[in-house]
Amino acid sequence: MGPANFSGQKEDRACYAYDATRRFYMPEAVIFPGNAVQVAQILRLATDHGFGVTPRGAGSGMSGGAIAVHGGLVMAMNRCARILSIDTENFVGTVEPGVVTAKFQRAVAERGLFYPPDPSSADYSTLGGNLAECAGGPKAVKYGVTRDYVLGLEVVLPTGEIIRTGVKTAKGVVGYDITRLLIGSEGTLGVITEMTLRLLPLPESVRTLTALFADMRQAARCVVEIMQRGIVPRAVEYMDRNAISCVKNYLGAGVLQEAGAMLLIETDGMAGEAEIAAEKIAGVLREHGAENVESASTPEAAESLWRARKAVSPALYAYGPDKINEDIVVPRSRLPEMVERIGRLSENTGLTMVSFGHVGDGNIHFNIMYDSSLPEQEVAAGQAVNEIFEYTLELGGTISGEHGVGIAKAPYMDREISPEALSLMKRIKSAFDPAGILNPGKMRL
Amino acid sequence: MGPANFSGQKEDRACYAYDATRRFYMPEAVIFPGNAVQVAQILRLATDHGFGVTPRGAGSGMSGGAIAVHGGLVMAMNRCARILSIDTENFVGTVEPGVVTAKFQRAVAERGLFYPPDPSSADYSTLGGNLAECAGGPKAVKYGVTRDYVLGLEVVLPTGEIIRTGVKTAKGVVGYDITRLLIGSEGTLGVITEMTLRLLPLPESVRTLTALFADMRQAARCVVEIMQRGIVPRAVEYMDRNAISCVKNYLGAGVLQEAGAMLLIETDGMAGEAEIAAEKIAGVLREHGAENVESASTPEAAESLWRARKAVSPALYAYGPDKINEDIVVPRSRLPEMVERIGRLSENTGLTMVSFGHVGDGNIHFNIMYDSSLPEQEVAAGQAVNEIFEYTLELGGTISGEHGVGIAKAPYMDREISPEALSLMKRIKSAFDPAGILNPGKMRL
Repeated sequence: MGPANFSGQKEDRACYAYDATRRFYMPEAVIFPGNAVQVAQILRLATDHGFGVTPRGAGSGMSGGAIAVHGGLVMAMNRCARILSIDTENFVGTVEPGVVTAKFQRAVAERGLFYPPDPSSADYSTLGGNLAECAGGPKAVKYGVTRDYVLGLEVVLPTGEIIRTGVKTAKGVVGYDITRLLIGSEGTLGVITEMTLRLLPLPESVRTLTALFADMRQAARCVVEIMQRGIVPRAVEYMDRNAISCVKNYLGAGVLQEAGAMLLIETDGMAGEAEIAAEKIAGVLREHGAENVESASTPEAAESLWRARKAVSPALYAYGPDKINEDIVVPRSRLPEMVERIGRLSENTGLTMVSFGHVGDGNIHFNIMYDSSLPEQEVAAGQAVNEIFEYTLELGGTISGEHGVGIAKAPYMDREISPEALSLMKRIKSAFDPAGILNPGKMRL
Repeated sequence: MGPANFSGQKEDRACYAYDATRRFYMPEAVIFPGNAVQVAQILRLATDHGFGVTPRGAGSGMSGGAIAVHGGLVMAMNRCARILSIDTENFVGTVEPGVVTAKFQRAVAERGLFYPPDPSSADYSTLGGNLAECAGGPKAVKYGVTRDYVLGLEVVLPTGEIIRTGVKTAKGVVGYDITRLLIGSEGTLGVITEMTLRLLPLPESVRTLTALFADMRQAARCVVEIMQRGIVPRAVEYMDRNAISCVKNYLGAGVLQEAGAMLLIETDGMAGEAEIAAEKIAGVLREHGAENVESASTPEAAESLWRARKAVSPALYAYGPDKINEDIVVPRSRLPEMVERIGRLSENTGLTMVSFGHVGDGNIHFNIMYDSSLPEQEVAAGQAVNEIFEYTLELGGTISGEHGVGIAKAPYMDREISPEALSLMKRIKSAFDPAGILNPGKMRL
């Protein structure tokens, strides 16, 4: 690879030792391949000599997928970062894995096209990382997640073969669906070196609405009602009472008033469509006792409505010192029960707990704020997580909607995945990676 | 299983010996399990004793997926045919695999919900078969295919374990995506015993348009233009000159006039949306020189516009005696080139060849009409198929859009799938089915 593409220096290794989980594992070296052939050479060497390789995008993952927990090599894919083509007749883009998500979104938007998956990290996360984790985001309620936009891949197997999966067309059913097996496999089955992504026409109009409610139950009831009337908004976000209160403190007076829950709803479509939908939604909101229904028809006004929702994460970082950040999903009609349970847990433990997220999908991000220097708080926080996961599964939900398992959720994986299914996953892992060199130590595989 | 659930009688076996490919392979016996536990017992026995088991839905598949080509047992899933629940708050349906697709569509429509995948066989095909083949249909251009509506499964592995895959919620990323690996695996990896399906709100309005064109190039240009204007119709179907002519002969005078190509376009949405989109489309059609633009706003009028398109298959069966029925996909902008190539091949061979299908997806169903009692026609037809597959791959396409590989496409599979990818698929097959008992002889696995 040459010295320009490899480093064993401590300062370089440290740059690739962490991700958004704030955990730190020093890799033994970092390597920067520039193409699939180099990736294949490295992986073949790893399989032959039995050293671990952890592929890495931007390191913005929330579950530890890009951290080399067992040492070995970090394979940084950020030098494979070309947008290879954007086909405006067939709505298909071909890109390398190191392309930053928002950069790709802007490039296709300039050509009148739309790549809907929008994780909050889009400004710095890479498409390769998005695929590895099957990233979601607010627009999933209408447009689905990353999985729904991948037509085909070029992938390097841990044993060094470069294969193509899937198609470059709208449809295709030849052979097993290796494409979707790779998506969400967290870099444990292969290294993606090229991806063919499905695009949509860019919506002509967008309308954004916000509303406040006395309690979460009322807000959730309203969301179910909107969708039952045949309206599919592109985003239905919520913040609970504690999230509103944190953001209010963070942004200062006048931006937000106290409430039991806040909804942010966005519609889009051809000219005319977003407006029709937004008007119907405003009607439903008012019927259900929403207060302060505000709506925005310009990008600037929409930005201002999004301000509170987007301030949740920074507000929680500022709240500190420590927090547990989780990502559960329940059927959306059961969301109020979960929010209430989190509220009771917060009262019982004395720990601040906030929840927010994608209510249209039933996807709840809850945060437990604690101080790790106080052992009783650490224990209480851990017990609360346990209790919430248990209740999630009781409600028919899942313990990770869009952040993945990695190391963060690995201790809980067997609550959701049976021993028989886990054993099948291990056999699949072996079918791809007989020497177990790719991203070792993740997902209990 | 008892005599009521098992038959070795010739007349019963004959009923389960064929599918829509018209090929005939007599199974040694037929078995009718009623639940997952029985499926598990049979599969465990098969793995222990090494006999083949071919799971079967309605036997309406186009690639031979449900035929026991190596003998053994046909496992008919039609007694597992309950709709277990339809959740109108969370838009989720839970069903057994033997439920007929159209029956499920009607059941959810009665509750204001919508299951979009609509293979032409929907009136008799089963959801289990649809999942096994990843069925498509006209609405795929807007709504995607079967894969996009499956949240989770209960599956019996060939070794007898009953596992759950995926989730019952809108999102979920815990562990490998076994759900989508199963979809389109043509009954070679596991037997689906329950499925959790994603539903949408039922569109409030539908508009249907038809238009005639002097040639296919003009029609395809028009489709690209419609989509570039941000309109996503729910169906964009076409018929070429020969398909129009066959249908005209079949339906009799007055129904259809000769033309180079016909488009059928359907829009849907909330009240108001379908109309806005249909008007815009009618404008684009006229700008592009379409003749006889007709539109329908009632279900009856739409039915009449669909009549010609739906008559293609029966018209071709009546045309007889033999035909080769293929299912290719090319990027939609390249569709005119493929239609022209098929036209030239028809002229050169003297065989009637018609093409029709889902132009919005670039999914072409082409049929070669021949007489198998004339060896020179049989040879010419086979050569034409070869040439069309080659050209399909040259254009960046795939040799099966929605019918699957089974036995029909197996001889051609290695043109699209590399030896390295095929070898990986075989290792995956072994990870699921070490004794190779499930649906043996399919997909070159």
